Amino acid sequence: MNIVVDGMGGDFAPKNVIEGVKLALAERKDITKLLLTGDEQTLKNAMQAAGLSDRRIEIVHASQVVDMHDPATAPLRQKKDSSITVAADLVKKGEAEAVFSAGHTGASVAATSVKWRMLKGVDRPGIASPVPAEHGLGLILDAGANVDAKPQHLVQYAVMGSVYLKHVIGVQSPKIGLMSVGEEDHKGTDFTREVFGLLKDAPVNFVGNIEGNDIFDKGIDVILCDGFTGNVVLKTCEGTAKIMFKWLKSEIKASPLRMLGALIAKNAFKSVKERGSYESYGGSPLLGVNGICIIGHGSSSALAVKNGIRVACESVSHRVNPHIEEELAKLGK
Amino acid sequence: MNIVVDGMGGDFAPKNVIEGVKLALAERKDITKLLLTGDEQTLKNAMQAAGLSDRRIEIVHASQVVDMHDPATAPLRQKKDSSITVAADLVKKGEAEAVFSAGHTGASVAATSVKWRMLKGVDRPGIASPVPAEHGLGLILDAGANVDAKPQHLVQYAVMGSVYLKHVIGVQSPKIGLMSVGEEDHKGTDFTREVFGLLKDAPVNFVGNIEGNDIFDKGIDVILCDGFTGNVVLKTCEGTAKIMFKWLKSEIKASPLRMLGALIAKNAFKSVKERGSYESYGGSPLLGVNGICIIGHGSSSALAVKNGIRVACESVSHRVNPHIEEELAKLGK
Repeated sequence: MNIVVDGMGGDFAPKNVIEGVKLALAERKDITKLLLTGDEQTLKNAMQAAGLSDRRIEIVHASQVVDMHDPATAPLRQKKDSSITVAADLVKKGEAEAVFSAGHTGASVAATSVKWRMLKGVDRPGIASPVPAEHGLGLILDAGANVDAKPQHLVQYAVMGSVYLKHVIGVQSPKIGLMSVGEEDHKGTDFTREVFGLLKDAPVNFVGNIEGNDIFDKGIDVILCDGFTGNVVLKTCEGTAKIMFKWLKSEIKASPLRMLGALIAKNAFKSVKERGSYESYGGSPLLGVNGICIIGHGSSSALAVKNGIRVACESVSHRVNPHIEEELAKLGK
Repeated sequence: MNIVVDGMGGDFAPKNVIEGVKLALAERKDITKLLLTGDEQTLKNAMQAAGLSDRRIEIVHASQVVDMHDPATAPLRQKKDSSITVAADLVKKGEAEAVFSAGHTGASVAATSVKWRMLKGVDRPGIASPVPAEHGLGLILDAGANVDAKPQHLVQYAVMGSVYLKHVIGVQSPKIGLMSVGEEDHKGTDFTREVFGLLKDAPVNFVGNIEGNDIFDKGIDVILCDGFTGNVVLKTCEGTAKIMFKWLKSEIKASPLRMLGALIAKNAFKSVKERGSYESYGGSPLLGVNGICIIGHGSSSALAVKNGIRVACESVSHRVNPHIEEELAKLGK
């Protein structure tokens, strides 16, 4: 298969992107061609620095880069020759089947949504952000593509999240939990109550309302929410984990004895950090667009880029989009 | 001053409540009378078990208890003789100035809102839940009293949160951050953008949009949000902290060496736990009602109850409600 990688996307591009591409190509023989978009000379230099030369790589020049201060619509207006615009166009022209980008999330959503349009039965795309739940992979869906969502959008997300987990990850009957402010059926806002009613009749394994403290240890596979709530939840998890490590560090530094103990137990801290890291997931699928787009964390490491490319390949090979259209056709029947 | 304590409120009532009352009475000479509501015999037995006898205590019998499965309206309908209903009535009759309850949050909100009504200039009450920020006390406001909020409600919350922090906690110019999905002014939903516009003209120190990962370490004093978002944020913080301690424990138990190290450094873990604990804050003020109501965590310990009663006393002595009405009168002028 052919995959496009946004060579300029991410806080540490192109270095980490190129290093991630190198790891991905070494691992995946199913990649026939890997198209890299971005400034040709910059990418060539980065490839040389990383010692990367692979005949499967083809650089497709793009003169611009969407940066964090640009509006989401930049790839469609001010920066039509940006690396993400050119990447989306390559899929549109049929030259590749999937895009990975660790760049501006909103720009990736806008470029792919507008250029590729939606799958049949989908009104809005949703970002499925992985969270390290106790039982395995959980998905916060939508994590921020669609902040002014309508109830039917969430029902479509529930179906898409189920299909993704079933066909790509191999979860038999993914549990869908609706983020709310109490577990009882009637708890929540007018919006969540409407979604609740629609989900009862949808072809998914809806387990009811969940709360913010149910994300990790209640066996929920899809944490369903509007894009505003999902984005706030995701960043709150990150912020809480970060502050706890910070406090732990400062408390340990408070005495030489504590420092000694922490040194002896240091692998435990390392394991917890790894367990909570996004690196092994690599990226968040943007579900609902008519093509495969995997969104990486802005600060993606080479390992995260490699895993993001893996998620792109798996989404293609497991035919997630045709399956989504099939399942959505059952809605409202 | 006279304070009412809901003797039956909380998962560990009346035991923890009575023990907390004992601690509070030992510490606070400014409490003239402490009214305890609930079943008279049950409370007498618990007082005896705790070795509590203080002439300032007066038991006011209430034959019912609102439990976690009751609807929020129970104190006003099915359980009109509940401990929280009787507590709210005592303030209404002028026999006490503040209520502390660790019982059903929605029931406390409903009982006090309906019986006391709102302060002048307030449309809806908001729960100000304390979070242990790096710089000191942060407040998530609203943490769940008003889940279908209107933009003007959030502006009132911003004013009330500022007044509380200024007059009760002593923060000179409390920083108000609006929970959104990006720091730029235009980021967010139609709802948050409308709130943003209103806040620019409000008599508060509005610092702009904040994100979920800004809660602890950006010096924000009031994390302003609608009650749905606030409740989800609060519980997500709790859930993330809980899972991290769980993972750390299981990773430490994975080897005897790690266990040894953790034993040596154990005070560091203890300090982090204490830093994140709600116990020292004691309770969340319900701002906007015409009286003082402090809502405790359902699983409040004796220490949390003691501190909740302290927060109630301080809200009375610093005259938070008259100050709120003064400040709100400036809105729209």
